[in-house]
Amino acid sequence: MSDSPKPQLPPSPPGDHCLVPRPELEAVTEKWFEIMVRVQPHHTDYGGVVWHGTYLTWLETARVECLRSIGVDFADLVKLGCDLPVVNLALRYHRAIRLGQTAVIKVQMQEIQKVRLEWQNQIVCLETGELCVTGKITLVAIDPAKGKIMRRLPPVVQENLLKLRQ
Amino acid sequence: MSDSPKPQLPPSPPGDHCLVPRPELEAVTEKWFEIMVRVQPHHTDYGGVVWHGTYLTWLETARVECLRSIGVDFADLVKLGCDLPVVNLALRYHRAIRLGQTAVIKVQMQEIQKVRLEWQNQIVCLETGELCVTGKITLVAIDPAKGKIMRRLPPVVQENLLKLRQ
Amino acid sequence: MSDSPKPQLPPSPPGDHCLVPRPELEAVTEKWFEIMVRVQPHHTDYGGVVWHGTYLTWLETARVECLRSIGVDFADLVKLGCDLPVVNLALRYHRAIRLGQTAVIKVQMQEIQKVRLEWQNQIVCLETGELCVTGKITLVAIDPAKGKIMRRLPPVVQENLLKLRQ
Amino acid sequence: MSDSPKPQLPPSPPGDHCLVPRPELEAVTEKWFEIMVRVQPHHTDYGGVVWHGTYLTWLETARVECLRSIGVDFADLVKLGCDLPVVNLALRYHRAIRLGQTAVIKVQMQEIQKVRLEWQNQIVCLETGELCVTGKITLVAIDPAKGKIMRRLPPVVQENLLKLRQ
Repeated sequence: MSDSPKPQLPPSPPGDHCLVPRPELEAVTEKWFEIMVRVQPHHTDYGGVVWHGTYLTWLETARVECLRSIGVDFADLVKLGCDLPVVNLALRYHRAIRLGQTAVIKVQMQEIQKVRLEWQNQIVCLETGELCVTGKITLVAIDPAKGKIMRRLPPVVQENLLKLRQ
Repeated sequence: MSDSPKPQLPPSPPGDHCLVPRPELEAVTEKWFEIMVRVQPHHTDYGGVVWHGTYLTWLETARVECLRSIGVDFADLVKLGCDLPVVNLALRYHRAIRLGQTAVIKVQMQEIQKVRLEWQNQIVCLETGELCVTGKITLVAIDPAKGKIMRRLPPVVQENLLKLRQ
Repeated sequence: MSDSPKPQLPPSPPGDHCLVPRPELEAVTEKWFEIMVRVQPHHTDYGGVVWHGTYLTWLETARVECLRSIGVDFADLVKLGCDLPVVNLALRYHRAIRLGQTAVIKVQMQEIQKVRLEWQNQIVCLETGELCVTGKITLVAIDPAKGKIMRRLPPVVQENLLKLRQ
Repeated sequence: MSDSPKPQLPPSPPGDHCLVPRPELEAVTEKWFEIMVRVQPHHTDYGGVVWHGTYLTWLETARVECLRSIGVDFADLVKLGCDLPVVNLALRYHRAIRLGQTAVIKVQMQEIQKVRLEWQNQIVCLETGELCVTGKITLVAIDPAKGKIMRRLPPVVQENLLKLRQ
């Protein structure tokens, strides 16, 4: 877990922040959750670099471990009858990461809109410091038994997500 | 290769089409190239449905086979010193496809901007007829030896892509 | 589905075959079931050849499609409460298959011991004719709800497997 | 890296061990090298358990990291013109590991025969303590440029492997 450099805003006058209405879709957190993965043979393709679909496995692991870090166990969630499939995926691939290099996978749950969780994603190459992949991924809470989107997040998720704001 | 239903436009007056400037980024083709894949165990996750990253393997196969159908052999291209990595990926997941169902993967090379190839993508469930995944994927031609974006597409690619227009 | 060259045995005298006790573990069939797969980028690793684990996906597809060809729908089987996990896997990798080449995946259900299904496997490169991978894979029928090995194969499987003998 | 429980042998008389001819294929080491992996959605199949091919990715990571721990960097090795493909794979699947559980992947380089490296493999479920997968995997050193098996291991590999004996 690392604090990303916070964009510098002009200082608010004292007490003023109370007057500013909090935006509906404010950032849940400004913290990035990180995992590191060394690039193994099975991650690569003929080019000697990470195959573009491999990043999805790493981003998934980072999301699941981020949720765990705030007390949401993904396997328990599934047992409780709530799944969180990806409904939207938008990634940009800026630079390749090579066999043997180390990927730093950074995820941030940026917004919650009812049962939609929006994640920001960044993947950096540890050795070069270069930003290699960026993007957004949206999950939605569904009830797999009914095959329907849930009306609200399960309480265990809702309550724990609030911790991210603090 | 199948012709998708073409949107019906009112007929142009004779000769009129010459006056209309062709947009720079016109559709390369209105044809969709299709492959079919039955959902196997290794495509699924704990939910019994296709894992969201699996679709990237099918879309890649469809692109490679589409290129082959117009005379561009991907492996030859790589040997010639031209690679076509994904630089942009935007997918929406509308509905799940289940173990044993059949996915119809439809790709269309929509635009060519110098060395960028934009593909439209649709994945339909054969059994239900439902549209399950849609999106755009952009490839860019690079020279792997130099690690740089190419100035122009290799002639073999350029010439064959023109066939798609006819 | 293709007939492999059958080993030549001396002809039995008429009626004699009744006297020869059928071995418990006789070959279910001498036919090989085949699928073909072109090697795509996501199948390869940094060496430009098929990553060794990729073959497991192809062999699985071949087994599932072989079962389908004799009337056993794998997804239906799972719904009926019977799963067929791999319990034993022994593969030898003789030669690599490269990006763009075509793999011919040949599977043969060789033996049935109660609820154990033994498969022979061969993977040949279509372009070179070389035998690239050989091996055995054993499946066992389990009841996932109980987490136990079944006492006997479900009738639908048992009856259809008998067809392979004819 | 953990010491596995060593089988208890009766103590040798002093000096006696010099008389006993060292077996050609003695164990390189009795130490097991371990990594841990939490089971993520992309590791599972429709059954909610780890798909049988997923284990190959974990075992590969464990081998690569084991080699790194003794000073052999796999990516450097490839750059030097030595690859170590899998030529033999024999795995037994005893029990399934479920979504959310933790796999302890244990590998041990057991034997070196010229350019063949034989690895023992064990995968244990951390939560249940059960042994889930066991088996052997053999790598062989090849020169990818020539497409041939090497006559001897590169010195960097040979020397570092000797450290495992100490």
